[in-house]
Order: sequence, then structure tokens, then C-alpha cells
Amino acid sequence: MSKKKVVVALGHDALGSTTLAQLDAVKKTAKALADLVEADYQLTITHSNGHQVSMIHKAMTELHRVYTDYTPAPMCVCSAMSQGYVGYDIQNSLKSELLSRGISKPVSTILTQVTVDPYDEAFYDPKKAIGRYMSKEDADTEVNKGNYVMETADGYRRIVAAPQPIDIVEIEAIKVLSDADQVVIACGGGGIPVIEQQHVLKGASAVIEKDCIAGKLASDLRADELLILTSVDYVYLNFGKDDQEPLRNLTITDAKRYLAEGQFGETDMLPKIVAAISYLEAVPHGRAVITSLNRTADAINAKIGTVITA
Amino acid sequence: MSKKKVVVALGHDALGSTTLAQLDAVKKTAKALADLVEADYQLTITHSNGHQVSMIHKAMTELHRVYTDYTPAPMCVCSAMSQGYVGYDIQNSLKSELLSRGISKPVSTILTQVTVDPYDEAFYDPKKAIGRYMSKEDADTEVNKGNYVMETADGYRRIVAAPQPIDIVEIEAIKVLSDADQVVIACGGGGIPVIEQQHVLKGASAVIEKDCIAGKLASDLRADELLILTSVDYVYLNFGKDDQEPLRNLTITDAKRYLAEGQFGETDMLPKIVAAISYLEAVPHGRAVITSLNRTADAINAKIGTVITA
Repeated sequence: MSKKKVVVALGHDALGSTTLAQLDAVKKTAKALADLVEADYQLTITHSNGHQVSMIHKAMTELHRVYTDYTPAPMCVCSAMSQGYVGYDIQNSLKSELLSRGISKPVSTILTQVTVDPYDEAFYDPKKAIGRYMSKEDADTEVNKGNYVMETADGYRRIVAAPQPIDIVEIEAIKVLSDADQVVIACGGGGIPVIEQQHVLKGASAVIEKDCIAGKLASDLRADELLILTSVDYVYLNFGKDDQEPLRNLTITDAKRYLAEGQFGETDMLPKIVAAISYLEAVPHGRAVITSLNRTADAINAKIGTVITA
Repeated sequence: MSKKKVVVALGHDALGSTTLAQLDAVKKTAKALADLVEADYQLTITHSNGHQVSMIHKAMTELHRVYTDYTPAPMCVCSAMSQGYVGYDIQNSLKSELLSRGISKPVSTILTQVTVDPYDEAFYDPKKAIGRYMSKEDADTEVNKGNYVMETADGYRRIVAAPQPIDIVEIEAIKVLSDADQVVIACGGGGIPVIEQQHVLKGASAVIEKDCIAGKLASDLRADELLILTSVDYVYLNFGKDDQEPLRNLTITDAKRYLAEGQFGETDMLPKIVAAISYLEAVPHGRAVITSLNRTADAINAKIGTVITA
């Protein structure tokens, strides 16, 4: 019998906001992932890259400021670098953890591009903040370059669009590795967004939501499970209020009703629920689990976590 | 009949020293690579990363200088970022070029680690120049940080060890993709050097020679051909002298004799010849071809290039 295919989505808790912090964080993350491998799952892992792409974007901006002969690095290049950085840290730590458990399973990262629609409405209403806080002057420079900027309490920040994914360009490579029962890290940071124009894949100044691509990846792979690892043990009703209530089992119908009620935080839980629904509509026999990274072992035994089914 | 497997090694001519220059350079490179795909070869591509890792290293240094809460990025992290950056540019351009020719072949990049021996003599005698030329003052700063620096005619440069590769950690992933007749980009910049210590893969402050890993990759894949694309049409005897003479066919025995005579430049042609020899000793039915990137189409038809056989 072939193994259970699981797509695991890692949030920023699984990673770090500096190179040193990440080295520590991924060691813990690797233990949780190795538990899944030991439980005989085939893993395809995706991860966020908010901190990492911001760090790289800032670094490349400073480089260009100091050494003007270096041309600026567009968002797509920063995103590609972040996939290299985070992918390496995860594959290195997970491989080491597996070796220490006597498991010689291949682990690798596929650099991934994801096509988006140039007419996606997100491009007309960018919302995703990236990079450093800027002065008014720097913000004006960005605006003059055609970029969007948002004013916050701490200064100005550049904002980019978060369009919907259309196709995962490297899906055939991911499938071949998944079918060979290897561990694959893919679609890091949501994937590098590209626009296909007359056979040319052009890097887009945008960011694809990590949970959104996790749902797409699980659908494309027809995964048995989508496991979204975050900072809370359950999805809650009335989250953060006196009467907050953990949800143990949820159908798509329930989930849609709660969505309509505005139960889920727009930047954290909402995209996870939306991803779970889109996956379960594509793969009705699947199950989506949302729980805490620290409780992965318990989630395997169904002791914890919100389980969503069609 | 299965396709001819070719490992292609791209030098710095195939890439660029800035983000913009690289965008242009890889478009040309993609045409040469697409010609090989059209000629029905299965391609595994490796590439240098000298300029790119230097750029990233500088950027991360500036970042740490300006935002001190960001911890420095070790060489292994810069190397991983460079694999992301260059891999993306190559896979993006090649995929676009193939799409424009109506070929829907998958192209992807595998982030690659390569184990090295901590007692490799190269660690005691670093020779590989990285980064740009520095002033005496900047060179002194590097030395004070414990790094090695070399004085050249054009200024100072940082040097790191170039140890021999032992194992390509992600070789099983590369093999699966190669066997599925996909285009794979792997071992970028020679791979991220890691030292295995008690089941832990620890990033090393080193650089693996790109030609050297190309030879190793071609051996591990039992490739039918190793194609080293560089800036000259042939390997020459008495290169750069009045009586320089192109070599059209060469056996391992000839190659070794010329090596012993000191015919080949230590930093350019010598590692290519050494890589070809090590590959042909592992895969005696194979052939190694050294020629210019611009003449790839002619090399396919054996009209140009130095062909080395066992």
C-alpha cells in the first residue's frame, strides 16, 4: 500500500527572524517533521518566508545603496533567495534529524514558481507589507518608482499584492519526488509569483499567501492530508474572548458558515480555513488538520487539532 | 531507448555579475540549453556562483552593519541563497525558452548540499578567491575576522578553502528527476559544503569547485556526456602563446601527460581537465566535451570542442 501523502504548511513559528534564530527554530521543527516521517507519512513541506524575504530585501537594498554598480534585486529574486535560504535550513536540519534516527530518507527542496493572473484584483489593492520601515522621503521614492507604500504607526512600508495562485510551474518535479516517497520542500514563501506573457514567465512584484499555496499543492498532489502547523492547538470560535471554544471537528459547511460570521482573523486563521476548504473541495476524501507545531506528535494520533472534512 | 544523459557545467560567462546583467545573460544561456533539449538530451545542469555568492555575502554584511539585530550570514547560507537566485533565473529562462518552442518539459532546481572532509588539506591552504577586489583596509578587516585574504595585481580578495566533494547529499532526488527525463539544475556553485559530524550536517566555510562537482555529478548519474561550457572553443596547448594549438580529441592518458607538463591554467582549464578525467575513470564509456557556451549548437554536431574519452 502506498504511503499517506501529507502536505505540511509551516508558519513563521517554525522558522526564525534572523539567521541564528532560524538555526535553532528549524532544529525543533525538524523533530516534528521527523515524527511524521517515522509515522510513515510521505511529506511535502511548504513554508512561509515573511521574515526571510524582508531580511533579504533589506540586505539587497543596502547593497545597492553602498555599491551603486549592483543593480536592485526585484521581489522575485529576493523570494528565490529566501527559498534557497529557508529550504537549505529545513532540508539540512531534517536530514540531520533523520540520520540521527537511523532513517536514510532523501530530503530536498524544489525551487518553485507559481503563475498568477496579471489582472488579479489583488494587484489593484496591494495589502501585504514587506521590507523595512521607511522615511517619508524613501517612501516617496518608492511611489515614484511605481511601487505601493502604506503609512503605519512606525513609519512607511512598501506593500505588494497577494494574488491567487493559478499553476505551480514545477508541479511535475514535485510529483515525481512525492511519488518516489521522498521528502520534498516546495512552494516556499508561497512560491515565486510569475506572470505568463507570450510564453515568457515574468517575475511579479507580489507575494502568494503561504496557506493558499499549501491548499493548492495538496489539491494538485491529491494528498490524503493537509496539515497546517501554526501557533495554536485548535481553531477557535470567539477566539481571544471569554467564551472562546475550540473546534475539534468541522465540515466544509460549518467552516463556510463560521467564515461568513467573521469568526476567523483575516491575516491568520482565515487563510488557513479557506485553504482547507479549497483542498477538500478538490479532494473530498481528504482531511485538513490545523494545530500547533509543538503538538505534531499528538496530532498524528488525533489527540489534538481541528480536523476538517468534506 | 532512453535518452542521452548529459551533465552541463556552466561557468560565469553563462551568468551575470549583477541582477540585471544576469537576466540578459541567462536568456542567451537558455537558448543554448534549449538546443540541447531539442537535440533530445536529458539535461542535468550545474553552474558557478562566484559573482552571485560574493554579491549576497556583501549584501548580508551591509545588512548586519546597518541593522545590528540581524545576525551575520555564514558562507553556507549565502551559498544557499545563491542557489536560489541563480537556479530561479536559469529555470525561469529555460522554461520560458522551451515554452516559446512549444516544448512542455519540466525544469526545476534542487538545492544541493555536498559533504566535505573537515581534514581536507584545502582547509589548511585556502586558495579560492571570492568576492570583489578590496582595499588594503577592507582586507585587514577580513583578516581580523579570521578570514583569509590574498593580494593580487588588482587589489586584495578574500580566499576560502576549496575542498574535494565526498557525497552529493541530495543525489537521490536528482536521480529520480533525471530518470523521469526532466531538466534538473543541481549542485549550484559546487553545492553547499557541509561536514557530517555525528549525524549532523554542519555548513562549512568553503567553496567546492564547480567543475569538480560537475565531474562527480556526471559520475554519480553515470551520464553519457559531461559538457563543460566555458569561454573558449577548445582546450589549447601553449594557450595564449604564438604556437597555441587547439586539441580536438584527447584521451585520459594524453590529458594526464599535458597536466603533468603544466599545460593548463590552474584556475580555469586545469579543474575542467581534472573533472573530465575523474568522470571518465568512473564512466569509461562516457565522453567529456569542453567548448564555448556560444558554440553549443556546433558542439552537438561535433563540429567544435575538445572531446575527451577514456
